[in-house]
Amino acid sequence: MAKNKKPQKVKARLIRGFNDRSSSDIRATDEMMDKIRSVFELYGFDPIETPFLEYTDALGKFLPDSDRPNEGVFSLQDEDEQWLSMRYDLTAPLARHVAQNFNQINMPYRTFRSGWVFRNEKPGPGRFRQFMQFDADIVGAPSVSADAEMCMMMADTMEALGIKRGDYVIRVNNRKVLDGVLQAIGVTEEGQKLSVLRAIDKLDKFGVEGVRLLLGEGRKDESGDFTKGAGLDRAQCSAVLKVVGSGAIPKLKEVLDQVTLDTGGVPDEWGGMGHLLYDDAVFEITEELEPLLNSAGYSDRIKIDPSCVRGLEYYTGMVYEAELLFDVTNEKGDNVVFGSVGGGGRYDGLIKRFTGQAVPATGFSIGVSRLMSALKNLNRLDENAMPAPVVVCVMDKSRISEYQKMVGELRSAGIRAEMYQGNPKNFGKQLQYADRRNSPAAIIDGSDEFEKEIIQIKDLVAGKQASKNIKDNETWKEQRPGQFECKRDDLVEKISALPAIKAWLNSNG
Amino acid sequence: MAKNKKPQKVKARLIRGFNDRSSSDIRATDEMMDKIRSVFELYGFDPIETPFLEYTDALGKFLPDSDRPNEGVFSLQDEDEQWLSMRYDLTAPLARHVAQNFNQINMPYRTFRSGWVFRNEKPGPGRFRQFMQFDADIVGAPSVSADAEMCMMMADTMEALGIKRGDYVIRVNNRKVLDGVLQAIGVTEEGQKLSVLRAIDKLDKFGVEGVRLLLGEGRKDESGDFTKGAGLDRAQCSAVLKVVGSGAIPKLKEVLDQVTLDTGGVPDEWGGMGHLLYDDAVFEITEELEPLLNSAGYSDRIKIDPSCVRGLEYYTGMVYEAELLFDVTNEKGDNVVFGSVGGGGRYDGLIKRFTGQAVPATGFSIGVSRLMSALKNLNRLDENAMPAPVVVCVMDKSRISEYQKMVGELRSAGIRAEMYQGNPKNFGKQLQYADRRNSPAAIIDGSDEFEKEIIQIKDLVAGKQASKNIKDNETWKEQRPGQFECKRDDLVEKISALPAIKAWLNSNG
Repeated sequence: MAKNKKPQKVKARLIRGFNDRSSSDIRATDEMMDKIRSVFELYGFDPIETPFLEYTDALGKFLPDSDRPNEGVFSLQDEDEQWLSMRYDLTAPLARHVAQNFNQINMPYRTFRSGWVFRNEKPGPGRFRQFMQFDADIVGAPSVSADAEMCMMMADTMEALGIKRGDYVIRVNNRKVLDGVLQAIGVTEEGQKLSVLRAIDKLDKFGVEGVRLLLGEGRKDESGDFTKGAGLDRAQCSAVLKVVGSGAIPKLKEVLDQVTLDTGGVPDEWGGMGHLLYDDAVFEITEELEPLLNSAGYSDRIKIDPSCVRGLEYYTGMVYEAELLFDVTNEKGDNVVFGSVGGGGRYDGLIKRFTGQAVPATGFSIGVSRLMSALKNLNRLDENAMPAPVVVCVMDKSRISEYQKMVGELRSAGIRAEMYQGNPKNFGKQLQYADRRNSPAAIIDGSDEFEKEIIQIKDLVAGKQASKNIKDNETWKEQRPGQFECKRDDLVEKISALPAIKAWLNSNG
Repeated sequence: MAKNKKPQKVKARLIRGFNDRSSSDIRATDEMMDKIRSVFELYGFDPIETPFLEYTDALGKFLPDSDRPNEGVFSLQDEDEQWLSMRYDLTAPLARHVAQNFNQINMPYRTFRSGWVFRNEKPGPGRFRQFMQFDADIVGAPSVSADAEMCMMMADTMEALGIKRGDYVIRVNNRKVLDGVLQAIGVTEEGQKLSVLRAIDKLDKFGVEGVRLLLGEGRKDESGDFTKGAGLDRAQCSAVLKVVGSGAIPKLKEVLDQVTLDTGGVPDEWGGMGHLLYDDAVFEITEELEPLLNSAGYSDRIKIDPSCVRGLEYYTGMVYEAELLFDVTNEKGDNVVFGSVGGGGRYDGLIKRFTGQAVPATGFSIGVSRLMSALKNLNRLDENAMPAPVVVCVMDKSRISEYQKMVGELRSAGIRAEMYQGNPKNFGKQLQYADRRNSPAAIIDGSDEFEKEIIQIKDLVAGKQASKNIKDNETWKEQRPGQFECKRDDLVEKISALPAIKAWLNSNG
């Protein structure tokens, strides 16, 4: 009888970093996504979706935080030996879609999409290998007014989700500020620029001194692991930190003055075309973005912040980020600011990979799980939860047709209902099922009831409430709180009158 | 200037068998799914979802119509060399989920899920490598009443989608009918049984004579390709065809009489335990299923049909299928019955692979794209389409803030709106954009209008209507049909009064 030792039994297990989703999680997420979608639609965006698999070369190597780009994705080979990858974000496939349909698309192209993306990385706490993003993009929109609109849409999205003004901020900056200063101080190699970017992106996490190490030689963390730095010298570090550490974008002259102050002088070869880029960036911010935000009434929620750079190399202009400002307790028990729930920026060069010519585009991505856990923290979910079904108990197998009929009547009245479909022998198990299911009511129609043409209704909500006050079994059996009888024909009427059901029926018209 | 010849340009292309989804497709699908979900919820089902990747061994080899099971899925190796696969259906992952959480789950477990599944097969017309299924299952429900409820839910789903009674039928059968007759006639090898199953599943496609070939030696199709048969002898073929070719389930004795009639006699060794299984199956159909369907009033829509077998080997009892009965024109121009849009059955053994003990379960899967194309055929989609956004033209770049403000006012009133975000130099292009976008209106506020504190509203719907009657350019310019001016302050009021907008605002409360 060694039936449990059979070697052919397969182990039921999830792959690490992947999760099953519960009903409450799915319903809460869907509700949140509906609200986000409504804002995007109001702004004139329409849904467009791309498949889960793309040719690996079409996706490109634009993974954030990955020093081993090829290993960050799930890839496999097709029959004809071509490499395919599961999408790691929704922007790279959009670029492919636009390039492929370039002549048919009506520009500017306002689209949104939500979907699962996949990262073949080491999973950890709160770090999944499958997660959901919700993106919006405008392709074919060259001017800062489009970036401004994306920022406003992010702000409106936060408020549609019930996040109060003051509990969030949209931080905005221009990537060309950094590009300009890097060019001005002689940092032009792409790999080094990317390292600088990723170092700055860690400002929240490691502070100014941590970032100074990452900009220079490198940084050893508490566990002793060493992260190689970007290799900037002291003067270059000083210039970069002056730019990103100021509350507002400084003039380039102020940056160079600071370097002189810190290091005794500015190298002779600094300057050149970097000046122009830097000044252009400052103009876009102060002369184009800020007036638009002011007149639209968003300047209290959308703030210029030179430390906002975003960790992706492909941004070419404005970058923006939605940050939640309230405190939460992290794994270590510390109070920390909740932080980013999404962001994006201008990526005029991404479609060029395919078409050979720059196509101006700007867009952002919301991290759906991050935002969900923020809303849980704010108690902004499940306001109008759907009641569990009414359970019709099977008291007598020969009368199943009658029980099925009751269920049908309830459903016709818009009330969720089910007949108990397990083995009906043990009546206690049926009630336990209804109880664990959080059913608002169970219907009992045994032989006694059948003779009298009545049914018993157990109001499980009232029952649970009453059970808090009744301690002994005797009293319970006598009073049977929450249980009442009614005529068989009054089933729907009586069930509809239960508070949980009534509230639901009213809220659903 | 050979910029188009740069070798590093990446080709923008979809993988064969994968598609981008358009806005109208996404919206129509979402609307359809909402209706399906409402029916499932009314029946007491709740959503549960599993990830896109699973361990290959956990999924098992249950692909329909695939003679090369390992090649039918997209698989890759994890860092620790374990094989992972993209899910090819939603049932195998559900079995893994139930087995993994067996002790926490409140049985019977009524769940549903919709999601993309992937098949690494040769794509063809209407045959995709990524497609969507919508599944519902009850796990821990041993009796025929659960199968009956699944059939009724399928029927209610068809009607909720607007498919009229008479335009669909739910066909139902018991897999044990076939299992019983196969055992009785000496067909016991699993591979041969599966071949018989798949042969019968082709009855719609190839007719009785085609199936007879597939049951026997094999069948050559029009192109000359040969499909190997199940290898039954003449008497065995005759028995199987008598069972599946009858309008109702025959008694086993009638089957054997038919064999005698066809071949001159029944082999001596036929019979044995197959009789019991066969009779048990007939009992479940006639004594349990039919009375329930009759009393619930579904017997006009749910029909016993012995030719319904379903092509998956794991079914162990009732199998059922939703078939649409109206005619459509196929690729060859022939009128054919639309056919199956989904089906399922009882699979008591699937969870046993993990747990070692049988867990009774029954469920079905809807093919979302198939059903969508059926609804398109019936004109059951897009009844209440969302209007495209109103486009505010950019007449003067220095007044962008004012245009942005108009857009904001419209959005606050619940009207989809956008400022033109392309290059504004060419006014004609802006109108062309609004036109191609199907916008209900464009707003024009140039310097003339600004001075007079008015705006011009182009009612593009009325304009298109009028243009059908006006042929010459002169008259057009004079009359400017659909264009009218109003006070700047009346913007929202006038736009809200346009028929398309008004209808939408009313339907959305």
